[in-house]
Amino acid sequence: MKNKNYDLLRNILHQRRQKLACLINFPVILWSGRSIPRNYPALTYPFRASSHFLYFAGLPLENAAIRLESGKLELFLDDASPSSTLWHGEMPKRAEIAELIGADAAWTMSELKGRSINAATIALQDNLTLLQQSQILVRSLAPSIAPTGIDLELTQAVISLRLSHDAASLVELRQAAAVTVAAHKAGMAATPTAKIEAGVRAAMESVIISENMTYAYPSIVTVHGEVLHSEHYHHPLQTGDLLLADVGAESSMGWAADVTRTWPVSGKFSPTQRAIYDVVLAAHDACINQISPGVEYQDIHLLAARIMAAGLVDLGILRGNVDELVEIDAHALFFVHGIGHLIGLDVHDMEDLGDWAGYAAGRARSSRFGLGFLRLNRVLRPGMLVSIEPGFYQVPAILNNSETRAQYKDYVKWDELEKFADVRGIRIEDDILVSEGGREVLTGELPTKALEIEELVAVSA
Amino acid sequence: MKNKNYDLLRNILHQRRQKLACLINFPVILWSGRSIPRNYPALTYPFRASSHFLYFAGLPLENAAIRLESGKLELFLDDASPSSTLWHGEMPKRAEIAELIGADAAWTMSELKGRSINAATIALQDNLTLLQQSQILVRSLAPSIAPTGIDLELTQAVISLRLSHDAASLVELRQAAAVTVAAHKAGMAATPTAKIEAGVRAAMESVIISENMTYAYPSIVTVHGEVLHSEHYHHPLQTGDLLLADVGAESSMGWAADVTRTWPVSGKFSPTQRAIYDVVLAAHDACINQISPGVEYQDIHLLAARIMAAGLVDLGILRGNVDELVEIDAHALFFVHGIGHLIGLDVHDMEDLGDWAGYAAGRARSSRFGLGFLRLNRVLRPGMLVSIEPGFYQVPAILNNSETRAQYKDYVKWDELEKFADVRGIRIEDDILVSEGGREVLTGELPTKALEIEELVAVSA
Repeated sequence: MKNKNYDLLRNILHQRRQKLACLINFPVILWSGRSIPRNYPALTYPFRASSHFLYFAGLPLENAAIRLESGKLELFLDDASPSSTLWHGEMPKRAEIAELIGADAAWTMSELKGRSINAATIALQDNLTLLQQSQILVRSLAPSIAPTGIDLELTQAVISLRLSHDAASLVELRQAAAVTVAAHKAGMAATPTAKIEAGVRAAMESVIISENMTYAYPSIVTVHGEVLHSEHYHHPLQTGDLLLADVGAESSMGWAADVTRTWPVSGKFSPTQRAIYDVVLAAHDACINQISPGVEYQDIHLLAARIMAAGLVDLGILRGNVDELVEIDAHALFFVHGIGHLIGLDVHDMEDLGDWAGYAAGRARSSRFGLGFLRLNRVLRPGMLVSIEPGFYQVPAILNNSETRAQYKDYVKWDELEKFADVRGIRIEDDILVSEGGREVLTGELPTKALEIEELVAVSA
Repeated sequence: MKNKNYDLLRNILHQRRQKLACLINFPVILWSGRSIPRNYPALTYPFRASSHFLYFAGLPLENAAIRLESGKLELFLDDASPSSTLWHGEMPKRAEIAELIGADAAWTMSELKGRSINAATIALQDNLTLLQQSQILVRSLAPSIAPTGIDLELTQAVISLRLSHDAASLVELRQAAAVTVAAHKAGMAATPTAKIEAGVRAAMESVIISENMTYAYPSIVTVHGEVLHSEHYHHPLQTGDLLLADVGAESSMGWAADVTRTWPVSGKFSPTQRAIYDVVLAAHDACINQISPGVEYQDIHLLAARIMAAGLVDLGILRGNVDELVEIDAHALFFVHGIGHLIGLDVHDMEDLGDWAGYAAGRARSSRFGLGFLRLNRVLRPGMLVSIEPGFYQVPAILNNSETRAQYKDYVKWDELEKFADVRGIRIEDDILVSEGGREVLTGELPTKALEIEELVAVSA
């Protein structure tokens, strides 16, 4: 990487910790975590540093920690052993890394203990690192979803920073978005020649890998879109199937994109598929247009619910007054999740903190079927990046449940619904930055209209 | 999957536990492990079941255990919660899975505790599962590299089974090998148009993903072949560079392949690159020809050492008597690792057991620089699958070390070596099955000769 980039990095890290210092007046230690064994100690999963560490340290350093106090940054990292040079090459020394990230001091990990008094932290997901955190801080740590004392104060301060993206984050987020758009185009183009879902997945992930990025979450590429987090890729692609692809890249510094498109395997939507697709797209477009500083994100969710309900009434699947249908969660029989979530260093940003990031102070998850899955319930403000992802699904476990069928017998025309049997799952998802003036769709270069999608799929047909 | 395949699976699992029952007379409980969080609990690394569990249970079940006693198989697995159906789809019930794998009984995980008396196990790599193992067995567990008591007896029994592959393993291992061969061909063909290492990596992994497999280990695709386990992919591909690709597929049931080829980015080896390549290839071919039941694997390593030393004498890089050069580890200045290792459910098969699998009883690692890295030191027997992977590397940390240079000043012609500066790392690796009649190269369809490699790279030039 060029020196120029490190100048930018140093600058932004400095700004971030200055902002943190305005919010809290105690020291903070953040751990990066370790490589986790897959088969045996030397064969690990690809290392992913803790997002909180990445935010303030900038680089994905393994087995490292940083200490922040009053705007100062100290790095704790052991130099690689001479024998590791053979296997992993020459690594920059601690002092060099410290300079790259603008650290005020650099120490070995063993020196962390002596500089840990009264420090707050955020508990890591990895149990061994968590144990190390407890040992160094000489106290037990609550899990990251339920922080207490100064750890809670730190959590809230970090959230308030990470909620709104700065210029450096946006550079990374835009890169991840651009590569994700290219991956989806490649997936569409590969569909006519692919035999199974895995063939399309390969074409999409290949774009991400070739840009030296990784995927931000396990790719969903499935003809069973009704399985929300499907991780199977073995189903054959058959004429008449819709393929749902929810695939996003993660930049080398850890920033995510999250995009879904749904397209017909044959290159052509059936009339029923097209009809439902257009309802979902109407919700997608209306919700994006609604994004603006000061808007309640939950209202956008409810807007999607109304548009979905109205569309399904028009198609003869639901019957009744739209507001009433939403009130009784009839939309949620088909639109079974929330309209979206925060995006940042995590694809569901800061979900390691439970709902502390997603929900404003004093708010909690609704017990309503049609609201409880909403991951974000805050007033939007500039710099937030959110997904908008309405969907329509026919989940057998929901729609074949006899209690549900009885409960909604006056509102769902079950025989009409049967005509739409070739629509198992449709989702359309983009990443939208809340800006002073309203919004910017970071993934807007990827078409959404049914006709455009058909054209893209037809490319290599 | 078709019923026919499950008939085969049930059969082979039955055979495996019958064989185990002939070796030990106490019950065994094997855990599969859990999905490990990456960013937060719902965003995990792709699940990989413990290899020992896979060997006897056949399927990659999460959060499961099996109990083996006197040839009987009991499955412990909780049915998925109704809410998980929404996110992950309909899962087969415990009873169905039990039937698929031919279990004699099926229980919930909570019933494991009551059936754990006097059972042996193998400790998992994951700390939380390890804790669960201790709690269920009501005793502390030594790590898997240092088992004690009945756990050691079990370890030795499992090793004796897993050392020689049965028909079902070989079906999987051949599939992984075939996909790996295709991946390498795709990598070579993609080289002329790729800008950075990641472009070639993408072409190779794309083949693996499209076959619905995963990689058996982090792919090495680098113009810095001298970094043995490089996981960087950002270097540009420049005329004159050699690209070293060590990439292997893992089948859906977990069986690995492990192949390395080294090719010129430009499509043409330079005379110096070609000269060293042919020395490495001579070692590769001679070692493979030596593989046969009854042969000491260490002798094959020493054969490679002699051929490398002789070749480097011929090229004017080393001087002296070949046997003496090997004796003083002069070959190991350039051929810095062992000639290979076991391959099976792990790419370094059973390396979670330390050297218990790789080293025959009573043998331990040599303290010699030229022997200590050898991962396998056993008499070969039919059904073993091993890698043969000679290499030549110019590792700066080794060759620029002033002590080393002084020690070998009479044996290395340092000025001659400088002429070979365009050879940083070359490795040629195949997977060889020891058969009654001698050997079978499972990855033999992938060419090794310099001219053939040049042709493959030239495909899309």
